[in-house]
Amino acid sequence: MKRSSLFLLSFLIAGCFQLAGQTFHLGMAGYTFNKFDIDKTLSFMKKIDVHYLCIKDFHLPIDASADQIAAFKAKLAEANVIGYAVGPIYMKDVEAVDKAFAYAQRVGVDLVVGVPGVWGDKGPRYDVLDRVEQKVKETGIRYAIHLHGPDMPLYPDATSIWNDVKDRDPRLGICLDIGHDLRAGADPIKDLKRYAKRVFDIHLKDVTEGTKAGHAIELGRGAIDFPAFVKMLKKVGYKGSCSLEYEKDMSDPFIGIAESVGYFKAVIKREQ
Amino acid sequence: MKRSSLFLLSFLIAGCFQLAGQTFHLGMAGYTFNKFDIDKTLSFMKKIDVHYLCIKDFHLPIDASADQIAAFKAKLAEANVIGYAVGPIYMKDVEAVDKAFAYAQRVGVDLVVGVPGVWGDKGPRYDVLDRVEQKVKETGIRYAIHLHGPDMPLYPDATSIWNDVKDRDPRLGICLDIGHDLRAGADPIKDLKRYAKRVFDIHLKDVTEGTKAGHAIELGRGAIDFPAFVKMLKKVGYKGSCSLEYEKDMSDPFIGIAESVGYFKAVIKREQ
Repeated sequence: MKRSSLFLLSFLIAGCFQLAGQTFHLGMAGYTFNKFDIDKTLSFMKKIDVHYLCIKDFHLPIDASADQIAAFKAKLAEANVIGYAVGPIYMKDVEAVDKAFAYAQRVGVDLVVGVPGVWGDKGPRYDVLDRVEQKVKETGIRYAIHLHGPDMPLYPDATSIWNDVKDRDPRLGICLDIGHDLRAGADPIKDLKRYAKRVFDIHLKDVTEGTKAGHAIELGRGAIDFPAFVKMLKKVGYKGSCSLEYEKDMSDPFIGIAESVGYFKAVIKREQ
Repeated sequence: MKRSSLFLLSFLIAGCFQLAGQTFHLGMAGYTFNKFDIDKTLSFMKKIDVHYLCIKDFHLPIDASADQIAAFKAKLAEANVIGYAVGPIYMKDVEAVDKAFAYAQRVGVDLVVGVPGVWGDKGPRYDVLDRVEQKVKETGIRYAIHLHGPDMPLYPDATSIWNDVKDRDPRLGICLDIGHDLRAGADPIKDLKRYAKRVFDIHLKDVTEGTKAGHAIELGRGAIDFPAFVKMLKKVGYKGSCSLEYEKDMSDPFIGIAESVGYFKAVIKREQ
């Protein structure tokens, strides 16, 4: 074999290993802990052995000073937790967009999960979305729009987001909330396949049924087919976070979170 | 097709459905809750949606009166929990054997998990085991000897039990503690296959490693291959309980139990 072929072969092998290492990871959506401070959140994450957190503003205010941010990041580092994104952040106007991107820059993350527009709107506010695109280009920070299911007209499912981002900068995409997507009558596994290139974040969730009446439940007890979902994650080569957003028993969610995390860990192991 | 053939066919189909329904179930070994009363135990079991309990004497004393037993059973029924067995009960002499079987009869279970002999013994006390066999024959109640791993010489692994029961009444068998079996240097999956006919109860457990130094850990984080284990449960047609005996953080075990239960539920689902 020629030296150039050997070089190519070793390059390819190295590339495969690199790809094999770059897979999705299990995380927590900060919103899960909206009744608990960051210390309780981190000590619990240690117990369940989960190391990625999407940072919510009730844990780190959007106007946090440099000192506050440094202290917060030190806590995360101490707990061996990576704050991989901020959000979801509601952005009803362009000023809110500017604030959110400035915040993300100060925190040092490369992904913002956001809701551009006004909660009651039937459609997005395109001046807000235009500003988001402008800030994405300026900062290089990606932006994932969170979908909210049938409870609000603004971005109920993945398709409604796709329609608004597909012709924009490729760094605008989707935070695929699989529970809300199902409740909106969509198929989150098909949506993951269809929109894979634009799925930057995932909210893990199980729900009792795929209608508006469906409500949050421990992973594995509801209507989502997690083995099929994880197969699709692998198939499309998803490399972001699958962050559990657990909205049942939010005043005392820990037992349900732990069961859900155990369930998802076993499904991941199955598909390895 | 003749009428007799049709009858045979429908009989076989009905039999298959019956067999399909008679599979193993997830339960809790009462010992897991040795620092908590039965009310806390049952309210927690409701949260994790587990409905089988092996009753320990600290929840229902071995000398409990008929009234105490009735009140205890009413609590279980109210919580939709089946007390499927009693134990493990230590039986250092024949009097202890008599007491244990009388207790099981009063409680109304058909399985006793026991440790016949003295903790420090290198071998079992055969007078005790003889009495166990006599009581099994008298009462029809099955008896599963619990194995304890390398920490005690009396029944460290499944093989040591098998050797003592194989030539006795077929209702004497094994409570296969998969964590302790692994710690004793055995292979619990092979032992399940080898001794399937005599495995009446299982203690689910994961351990950090297959040596004496191995210690309890959340299911899925340790050395046990649960997918392979569940495959073997199905292969041998095990129809008893897989009861989690969780021995980590026993003063505050709930998070770890929930993660373990979620993990096992997903593995079961995988193998369905």
